[in-house]
Amino acid sequence: MTITSFNPPVRTLMGPGPSDVHPRVLAAMARPTIGHLDPAFVHMMDEVKTLLQYAFQTDNALTIPVSAPGSAGMETCFVNLVEPGDTVVVCQNGVFGGRMKENVERLGGTAVMVEDAWGEPVDPGKVADALQRHPDAKIVAFVHAETSTGVESDVPALTKLARDHGCLTIVDAVTSLGGIPIKTDAWGVDAIYSGTQKCLSCTPGLSPVSFSERAIEKIQARKTKVSSWFLDLNLVMGYWGGTAKRAYHHTAPVNALYGLHEALVMLREEGLEQAWARHRRHHLALRAGLEAMGLQFIVAEAHRLPQLNAVTVPSGVDEAEVRRRLLEDFNLEIGAGLGVLAGKVWRVGLMGAACTAHNVLFCLASLEAVLGGLGAPIPRGAALEAASSRLAGERD
Amino acid sequence: MTITSFNPPVRTLMGPGPSDVHPRVLAAMARPTIGHLDPAFVHMMDEVKTLLQYAFQTDNALTIPVSAPGSAGMETCFVNLVEPGDTVVVCQNGVFGGRMKENVERLGGTAVMVEDAWGEPVDPGKVADALQRHPDAKIVAFVHAETSTGVESDVPALTKLARDHGCLTIVDAVTSLGGIPIKTDAWGVDAIYSGTQKCLSCTPGLSPVSFSERAIEKIQARKTKVSSWFLDLNLVMGYWGGTAKRAYHHTAPVNALYGLHEALVMLREEGLEQAWARHRRHHLALRAGLEAMGLQFIVAEAHRLPQLNAVTVPSGVDEAEVRRRLLEDFNLEIGAGLGVLAGKVWRVGLMGAACTAHNVLFCLASLEAVLGGLGAPIPRGAALEAASSRLAGERD
Repeated sequence: MTITSFNPPVRTLMGPGPSDVHPRVLAAMARPTIGHLDPAFVHMMDEVKTLLQYAFQTDNALTIPVSAPGSAGMETCFVNLVEPGDTVVVCQNGVFGGRMKENVERLGGTAVMVEDAWGEPVDPGKVADALQRHPDAKIVAFVHAETSTGVESDVPALTKLARDHGCLTIVDAVTSLGGIPIKTDAWGVDAIYSGTQKCLSCTPGLSPVSFSERAIEKIQARKTKVSSWFLDLNLVMGYWGGTAKRAYHHTAPVNALYGLHEALVMLREEGLEQAWARHRRHHLALRAGLEAMGLQFIVAEAHRLPQLNAVTVPSGVDEAEVRRRLLEDFNLEIGAGLGVLAGKVWRVGLMGAACTAHNVLFCLASLEAVLGGLGAPIPRGAALEAASSRLAGERD
Repeated sequence: MTITSFNPPVRTLMGPGPSDVHPRVLAAMARPTIGHLDPAFVHMMDEVKTLLQYAFQTDNALTIPVSAPGSAGMETCFVNLVEPGDTVVVCQNGVFGGRMKENVERLGGTAVMVEDAWGEPVDPGKVADALQRHPDAKIVAFVHAETSTGVESDVPALTKLARDHGCLTIVDAVTSLGGIPIKTDAWGVDAIYSGTQKCLSCTPGLSPVSFSERAIEKIQARKTKVSSWFLDLNLVMGYWGGTAKRAYHHTAPVNALYGLHEALVMLREEGLEQAWARHRRHHLALRAGLEAMGLQFIVAEAHRLPQLNAVTVPSGVDEAEVRRRLLEDFNLEIGAGLGVLAGKVWRVGLMGAACTAHNVLFCLASLEAVLGGLGAPIPRGAALEAASSRLAGERD
């Protein structure tokens, strides 16, 4: 078999991530590699930390990108904070709470599950009950923005409950960072992790994390060593820490960090509030179009994420065939349902650089063309008109 | 603080890695991101597996890049193969054997250490003794090419010993892959891991691994779950495996994989044997030059790695100052000593795309200029003459 250089097709990425990466970020990735202990690189690392503190709205000194995708960011939080025998309240209202449970149990902890229906936010009342039934609980873990359903949970309400019971919090912000407000310090979050390939519009492969002083105290007071050498923050801090002399731990993914640096510089240029407003604005236009097409959101309006729009597949429509045609005919990627929602929903992402008026109209036009082509009874032209009106109204 | 786009200096990377990345690989990194479940991406993943099988000289079906740096590749091998209570013979003759010990112990295993002096290869006689004293040992782990000293150990001798005692082997090939012969199948290796930033001349951030059928059987027969969800091969195989339907596990680092694909296409274009010969040829020229300058290798000739040349710092010379001047005046990075060799040696890498006649002469000329400038008594011109003669001789 002859294998030659790979030239990917040029897609528009409106699934659950990765999202479209801005040309500035791609260009940064291709800059010359330098050593991971080079003074110029160490200076750039310090800038990445500062920029991540801004994105997370925190003064936490331990705010860094883990050198692996978001799943490793999740594992970094659990493997450092959970010791064998610890009880952790884990909230599950989609795919990712289930992963948290896996993490806790593989580390020898006990996961007390608080379950809500897929598409519903985490119910603080149930969490309060669980904390009263399990006074030995040490941590409460939950997902801010559930990528599998598009629902937002109430972080400050949940962190307050946890604090009132003397628990630390672990918050999954993979899909929220850069897309909707996160206020790590003001909300009293103890450990938070995200991914680079969602609303930061960077390439996948890194996981920004941030830990409070309270979290660091728990890590430093551990009775057992962290089971992962690679993710042990006691060691990682020696490399990313504030000391003059950096200790070699692992070789940092230099070029991926160039990309993240550029994505974060762009976020600061735009401003966090402006980025949040942009996600909201284009979500409202997309929503108007999708609803005009007759598609229903699975999440109630009050808890809907602007960056992840999960809508039900019309009855009689082959959802996989729709996605296949969107990809093949229009180079447009939207997401399938995960877990219990597989085959039942589409997930339309509006994340980071992909969250533009252009993409809102392009997505609606493509979807209308494909659904119409398959004979689905959808009103022609209504979606684009509704979305355009909305966008025009926003400009007034 | 105003933070703007980062434009790295253009260095020549002749340390222990990362090494210089070829412009074709950097260009590949900047291609448009596509989805990690896109059919075009899945096809590219299959090509990466085929190309890695070639690089590792194996037919192992489980031959993939782990989505994180070499340290995570090491951890992938240990976390999947070691169960609590397992005895593992760990050979240490430099920094990286010590990391293996950490991995074993954090997983609840017992590490039986076989120690050799830094700069010496692993002594098969000592390993045989350890296996006789510990008939319950299940795994033998060792480093093929010790990055901290530049010594090569005898893989086929060690794997044979392990097999004769019914043990699996874990081999660290971080610095060897692409630079010196590795014959995974012919040598009977069970688990092997490498990094992308050494002789493959790709950017850092991925760790190619390969597992034999015997290794997979041990993983599938585990009594306990793998403690890491992110690195659990039972789950990773669902994404990278040969089945028609890929199961989502984590979001692959798409653009980093573009880079690895391109680096592996280039390795296949050159040919493995030709790449090995190139490393050897330029090492001999560099050696001639360094020795003409009066510098001594710390590893005996028979066990010396061509891609990592560790030489002693002349007495009275401030080694950190030499590296600082090389970096600042010539944009040339060479490596410092690690661990017990800190302050005592320099490590000059000749890896992948950095392993060129141009770099041999440039490095010698720069080193001579800096050492001469610091007043070290080195013969002027002798190094370049010796290296040039050697390179000319090779061409005859």
